[in-house]
Amino acid sequence: MRDIEILDTTLRDGAQGEGIIFSLRDKIAVTEALDELGVTWIEAGSPGSNPKDIEYFRLASSLRMKNSKICAFGATRKKGVKAKDDSQLRSLLDAGTEGVTIFGKSWDLHVSEVLQVSMEENIAMIEETIAFLKAEGRFVIFDAEHFFDGWAANPSYAVSALKAASAAGADRLVLCDTNGGSFPNNITAAVLEAVKTFSGVPIGIHAHNDTGLALAISIAAVQSGCTHVQGTLAGFGERCGNTTLAALIPSLELKLGFKCLPEGKLAFIGELTRRVAEIANINISDDMPYIGAHAFSHKAGMHVDGILKNSSSFEHINPDTVGNERHFLMSEVGGRSAIAERVKKIEPSVSKDHPVIAALAEKLKKLEAEGWAYEGADASFEILIRQELGRYKPLFSIEAYRVFSEHPASDKIACSHAWVKVLVGTEYEIAAAEGVGPVGALDSALRRALRRFFPSLEKVRLEDYKVRVIDGKEAADALVRVLIESTDGQHRWSTVGVSADIIEASRAALVDSIEYVLMDLFDNTEADVCVSSCLTSQKKENGV
Amino acid sequence: MRDIEILDTTLRDGAQGEGIIFSLRDKIAVTEALDELGVTWIEAGSPGSNPKDIEYFRLASSLRMKNSKICAFGATRKKGVKAKDDSQLRSLLDAGTEGVTIFGKSWDLHVSEVLQVSMEENIAMIEETIAFLKAEGRFVIFDAEHFFDGWAANPSYAVSALKAASAAGADRLVLCDTNGGSFPNNITAAVLEAVKTFSGVPIGIHAHNDTGLALAISIAAVQSGCTHVQGTLAGFGERCGNTTLAALIPSLELKLGFKCLPEGKLAFIGELTRRVAEIANINISDDMPYIGAHAFSHKAGMHVDGILKNSSSFEHINPDTVGNERHFLMSEVGGRSAIAERVKKIEPSVSKDHPVIAALAEKLKKLEAEGWAYEGADASFEILIRQELGRYKPLFSIEAYRVFSEHPASDKIACSHAWVKVLVGTEYEIAAAEGVGPVGALDSALRRALRRFFPSLEKVRLEDYKVRVIDGKEAADALVRVLIESTDGQHRWSTVGVSADIIEASRAALVDSIEYVLMDLFDNTEADVCVSSCLTSQKKENGV
Repeated sequence: MRDIEILDTTLRDGAQGEGIIFSLRDKIAVTEALDELGVTWIEAGSPGSNPKDIEYFRLASSLRMKNSKICAFGATRKKGVKAKDDSQLRSLLDAGTEGVTIFGKSWDLHVSEVLQVSMEENIAMIEETIAFLKAEGRFVIFDAEHFFDGWAANPSYAVSALKAASAAGADRLVLCDTNGGSFPNNITAAVLEAVKTFSGVPIGIHAHNDTGLALAISIAAVQSGCTHVQGTLAGFGERCGNTTLAALIPSLELKLGFKCLPEGKLAFIGELTRRVAEIANINISDDMPYIGAHAFSHKAGMHVDGILKNSSSFEHINPDTVGNERHFLMSEVGGRSAIAERVKKIEPSVSKDHPVIAALAEKLKKLEAEGWAYEGADASFEILIRQELGRYKPLFSIEAYRVFSEHPASDKIACSHAWVKVLVGTEYEIAAAEGVGPVGALDSALRRALRRFFPSLEKVRLEDYKVRVIDGKEAADALVRVLIESTDGQHRWSTVGVSADIIEASRAALVDSIEYVLMDLFDNTEADVCVSSCLTSQKKENGV
Repeated sequence: MRDIEILDTTLRDGAQGEGIIFSLRDKIAVTEALDELGVTWIEAGSPGSNPKDIEYFRLASSLRMKNSKICAFGATRKKGVKAKDDSQLRSLLDAGTEGVTIFGKSWDLHVSEVLQVSMEENIAMIEETIAFLKAEGRFVIFDAEHFFDGWAANPSYAVSALKAASAAGADRLVLCDTNGGSFPNNITAAVLEAVKTFSGVPIGIHAHNDTGLALAISIAAVQSGCTHVQGTLAGFGERCGNTTLAALIPSLELKLGFKCLPEGKLAFIGELTRRVAEIANINISDDMPYIGAHAFSHKAGMHVDGILKNSSSFEHINPDTVGNERHFLMSEVGGRSAIAERVKKIEPSVSKDHPVIAALAEKLKKLEAEGWAYEGADASFEILIRQELGRYKPLFSIEAYRVFSEHPASDKIACSHAWVKVLVGTEYEIAAAEGVGPVGALDSALRRALRRFFPSLEKVRLEDYKVRVIDGKEAADALVRVLIESTDGQHRWSTVGVSADIIEASRAALVDSIEYVLMDLFDNTEADVCVSSCLTSQKKENGV
């Protein structure tokens, strides 16, 4: 098993992605997450380019790193300046990191048109910069920018840039597909040549995703001899992003026989990638390979059926190995096997042939035709199952509600307000609340009305609220589907409501959410007892 | 230049993706978008599996297709049943499509463990099914499910499945990486072998993205001789999705010398992919290759500088070729040019350096930070421009409104009702209306209040209504963005509203929609005159 050295550049190239803005505290938090995962190198910023990065390196020097080393990123010296007199190189040293990444030009077009120096001066800039940093005791990673475009245009010049870096003592020579325009089959020859020419220096790859092939290029490069790979955990980066390490590392470790992370870390890659994305305030795509929420979701009936017979029939790896899990989606294309699996969790004695499964499949089909969708609403689906099993008794009912939206607001009350009258057992309660919007007002009023019966609802709150117009063509009378995610601080559950009236759709999802958590608290068969005992204790508290 | 036949399966494999639910009308709209793009085949559903698909094929048969052909998707005959007696094959024929895709097993593990038939029976199922459909005059595409896993486990059996299909007259033999676990370098040998063995039948590839390599596999397959590629335009599909055609086709056409679409269509691939995604109510990822909003965004100062010197220095293709455009994030250069283009349509004398452009850029930045988005709301943006130019005067104002949602309904009025008081010139009007939901009620009341002033509003109606929760984490108080599309029977225009209160967000979009059409009817500078003459004529009609 060959070791592959991973360099994560989330904090440098990743931060060049549109919409990615890290605060100083964010950068420290990302550093900690990457160290926990155990990438070899964390490329953390350009101390020469902005004060935030300088401050970061000051703080980072006192971090106790468990697995990773930090490197700072910078350019070759300015033209016509001595390396020791270059202020940008000075700030790279001041960053005090163990490693330094230096990028230099290896495409003649860039030398003449962008840098606007002679071919010789560019080579001197590379060589002197690296020699200077090596003399200062730094581990130097040389990023040959645009290497593959350079190799295509002028291969001997591209290689001469690597030779200059190597001669000056660079510890890594990294071939960069800076514009992301390459294909796996046209990087292979260049990688093989570099590996052969510089047998003493590990060769690296740095790919971009402009053709959607960053992963494929990185894998082809490793298969051709690269032992150092640069990318970003969640794929962030300039334009279409960098190589997504969270997708690359599982392929390398699980399927191609390479070792990238310390033992036992792979199972945390999903959790840590989501943490980094959360810090950046970016959603990880659900269909992300290996770690996405949908990566092991099965919807087609035949697939579900196949998985139950033999998981390798429709899964390329065991989801546990990357800390993910399998989901069977409840839908019209899903079929009875998926339904039976869900029912068994509630009532293990029910087999796939039980009439209740057929009834549920029928009901699901009918409800989906009406616009309901249970894929993202596990709790509502569980209520549906319990209803069908005859093991569901609503703990409360909404007898009536009124929601008002008034603009401009009246003098003494918010624009949105609501009242709700509920019936619990034989007792009525009515409550009112105001809110920013009508759904918030209804939610507050409902909880207020219920809380003397069910004090545990205090802990429950909405976490996420989604609205989807199902058929927009009906315009303002379109059917809408509301999905709600709730939490009690420990668990999360999701519910759905559908109506042409957004308030009604929200009401349905809110009621399911509350019923679900109550059902969980009191076992449903004893609900009456619980409710009345709650009522009794509540009355005592109230002094009634 | 070799031709590559594209089969889009958004409506079949795409619909197996989590969260993808198409209504019948959605399916027709996707068909029209794909036909406009000009893919060769549209795989549209499984008529044997659900009633919605049967209804779809009935409707689709009367569509006037310009470029594409439709195929239905189904399985091989049931075990032990004659093809002509198989109800699923009967419904495939009833679909009345020119083409039929049949999937069959080519991995021995699936034959024994999932299908649970003998190896010989599976081969007979493939052969008899295809022979039956060919005898009925169908173009038959054979999808060899799990071909590469089958090839690895038992290559001669995998090939025998293809041979059976070929012997029965299959028009295409498609090698499927159903579990998405393959790598480009291990599909190549199998593709080369298939291409050599079945020289008379075009070979196809169907890849999944479970290792993030669907694009790379499809490209490697084409480079090894495949001439038929299956995928979905936006990458939708089971688990991690199918090959993203919107990323594949530009690579094949612009960089590898293949032809996939009719002449001139490539520039519309971004627009049409977004349309399909919009229908599915899924956001296209901003970092999507070629067509994503960030695909040609340059943030690093050095990159912007390089691009201005020579665009090929940091762009692998010209963004125009795929209908995309370059953005400079750090400078306002890109933003202002776009704004200036729009302003010139209203006031040709305004140049890019005019202070109004800077003011608009500033305003847009502020509004976008607050959650507004004008990409899909041209009419609202035009109102913004006219405001900035001092060429906008509102024709009416809403003095107050009240919206009521009551459940259960009162005796004599619908669950949702509203009243609105408007001011037009110096006259007030108040009107009430009821509706299915609160937004419909508000819309009706507003139109009623305005119609004695602006009789032409009679023709105007809402065509489409979309709600997007901008930050779901605030749950019921989340900011929502409402997009409305309106029509007067001839033109369509779109407007936007944002608020934490969905009624207020809808109100803003409704008001913009009405202002826009009135602005267009009466030239704005003469608005006062028009309004008073309308009032006069209206009064006469009313006999006042």
